[in-house]
Amino acid sequence: MSDTLPRTHIVGAGLIGASIGIGLSAEGWPVTIADADAQAEALARSIGAGGPLGDHAPDLVIVATPPSVAGAVVVHALQAWPGAVVTDVASVKAPIAEAADATGHGARYVGSHPMAGRELSGGLAAQGDLFKARPWVICPNGAAAAAVELVLRVPAALQCDVVTMEAPAHDAAVARVSHAPQVAASAVAAALGALHSDDVALAGQGLRDVTRIAGSAPGMWADIARLNRGHLVETLDHIIADLEDLRESDDIGEAVTDLIERGRFEVARIPGKHGGATRDWAGVTVIVPDEPGHLLKLLGDTAQVDVNVEDITIEHSPRQPVGLTTLYVLPSRAAELVAALESQGWEIAAS
Amino acid sequence: MSDTLPRTHIVGAGLIGASIGIGLSAEGWPVTIADADAQAEALARSIGAGGPLGDHAPDLVIVATPPSVAGAVVVHALQAWPGAVVTDVASVKAPIAEAADATGHGARYVGSHPMAGRELSGGLAAQGDLFKARPWVICPNGAAAAAVELVLRVPAALQCDVVTMEAPAHDAAVARVSHAPQVAASAVAAALGALHSDDVALAGQGLRDVTRIAGSAPGMWADIARLNRGHLVETLDHIIADLEDLRESDDIGEAVTDLIERGRFEVARIPGKHGGATRDWAGVTVIVPDEPGHLLKLLGDTAQVDVNVEDITIEHSPRQPVGLTTLYVLPSRAAELVAALESQGWEIAAS
Repeated sequence: MSDTLPRTHIVGAGLIGASIGIGLSAEGWPVTIADADAQAEALARSIGAGGPLGDHAPDLVIVATPPSVAGAVVVHALQAWPGAVVTDVASVKAPIAEAADATGHGARYVGSHPMAGRELSGGLAAQGDLFKARPWVICPNGAAAAAVELVLRVPAALQCDVVTMEAPAHDAAVARVSHAPQVAASAVAAALGALHSDDVALAGQGLRDVTRIAGSAPGMWADIARLNRGHLVETLDHIIADLEDLRESDDIGEAVTDLIERGRFEVARIPGKHGGATRDWAGVTVIVPDEPGHLLKLLGDTAQVDVNVEDITIEHSPRQPVGLTTLYVLPSRAAELVAALESQGWEIAAS
Repeated sequence: MSDTLPRTHIVGAGLIGASIGIGLSAEGWPVTIADADAQAEALARSIGAGGPLGDHAPDLVIVATPPSVAGAVVVHALQAWPGAVVTDVASVKAPIAEAADATGHGARYVGSHPMAGRELSGGLAAQGDLFKARPWVICPNGAAAAAVELVLRVPAALQCDVVTMEAPAHDAAVARVSHAPQVAASAVAAALGALHSDDVALAGQGLRDVTRIAGSAPGMWADIARLNRGHLVETLDHIIADLEDLRESDDIGEAVTDLIERGRFEVARIPGKHGGATRDWAGVTVIVPDEPGHLLKLLGDTAQVDVNVEDITIEHSPRQPVGLTTLYVLPSRAAELVAALESQGWEIAAS
């Protein structure tokens, strides 16, 4: 089986299913795809996400339905194709693993969670490269080694970073790194409701960062919250307890300092580049006219001194035709960059 | 007084005081500066932030001390220089206005809040341009019109956007757009403490955005929380109530959808470009090798089709030498940009 490409059937032709179909098809895999919605299925076919199932039983079934029905579809697939290995792509894993185990066919089920990380949906947005260089979590649960090996060929073909963990640990982790942050960001945004729009205009980059994910549509969050309720509530309880402790503290200044110090320690553990912990990049903030070409010139002048830009933030100024662009670079190169940019006539706002 | 430049004395030679001193001195203002710390004062002098006070009483005093002592220093300045107008730059305004009013000299006090928005501190980081194109809030309180007019000349000289509001409204607004978001971001980060570092590695751009401000040092947050405790607690209570309602809801899916919808409505009110509401930019995500020069080439190929880049995010891939760079552009130009970039050989990961 490791030499021939597995006959792969995808159930669900939304963004994730169609993108996997396009990606695997591009690698020469024999892919079929189906969707309960005939229009979605036809669209996926038309963009090369896979053909019709036909008479051959699949070797591998990838369930890419909404999370709320993923468990039932996995169970159905395990029963319908007794020779197939089944995986699914839902972002909550333990409830689906439990449903698979309950069929007695748990040895043929392996959980997957490809972390695409963009707020898109629908087959029209599908791209074969959607997962390239992204984490793809594999939860082996009680699966047979051969089943795990087969499922691992999918992220390998799509050039993903494979992360292996057990389903409950995965669900606990995504509650803290993804589900609760989404809810908290929405709660911070909702608290702006008390303000007049003129007052909201005092917002700076900090608020824009905190609430960026609060700007997207609810999408599958209802399903995710229902399936991962236990871990989500546990994480919210942690956050609520910290906020309550702070509001009831004798000295709110000391309490804020303590909370910020604890949060800061954790932020340093969030990976930045190449799997390492976030480095402290140095920011060089430049005043850039808000017109085409100026950002290009800035990057060009930066490249002249062979400094790599690790991150960029652009802050548009209210009511003025300039923006503040911050280039994040290795701290050891910041002074040199500032000198080079100033010699090219750039106004440095901060460094 | 509107023709001659006011003799201006700055009390406090940290980042804000020294930056104002440099900026006003560059515009020809006669500026003096003092700091309780002789070394900080000497440093500020050496970088052109102002001379020694001398015998002349100032026309304008700018108090740029830490917020915890700003009220006392404002009171002292109002009493020491009976002919001077006094302002301060603390990020909480009502307690200082109350202290000024209590002296009976409230007509000569005007609150200021320049919103520099960068996490820097110390006179060494001082830049005359620190406030350029940023909001500068003026709280007139009970000040005489001539006093307000004099203080307004400072943000005018520093090319800031002036926003006028009363002190209590200012404090209520910054609690919601700045103080509570900082606390909430730190609480989200602190909740990562339960996770092994391997699990924190599942973090995506969403968590990095939410917790970015949680990575900075506590700095003046203790002072700010003490001075604005009432408004901060009121905002935290709003956030806690939303999180509590969610955890206790009969259907957590419905509750999450409702909270996300409410948050989304508010996010749309956060100003983006030129004072307008945030537009829905279209994101074009490109796979970019993580080496100097590639980002430049990408911007160059973008400029070829004369598309303005409104914002950029760069996401480094763990363990792979590529990054995902998303260019945010006018939605009407996105398709054209994708075609142009593809014709130049760029891999588009999503659009």
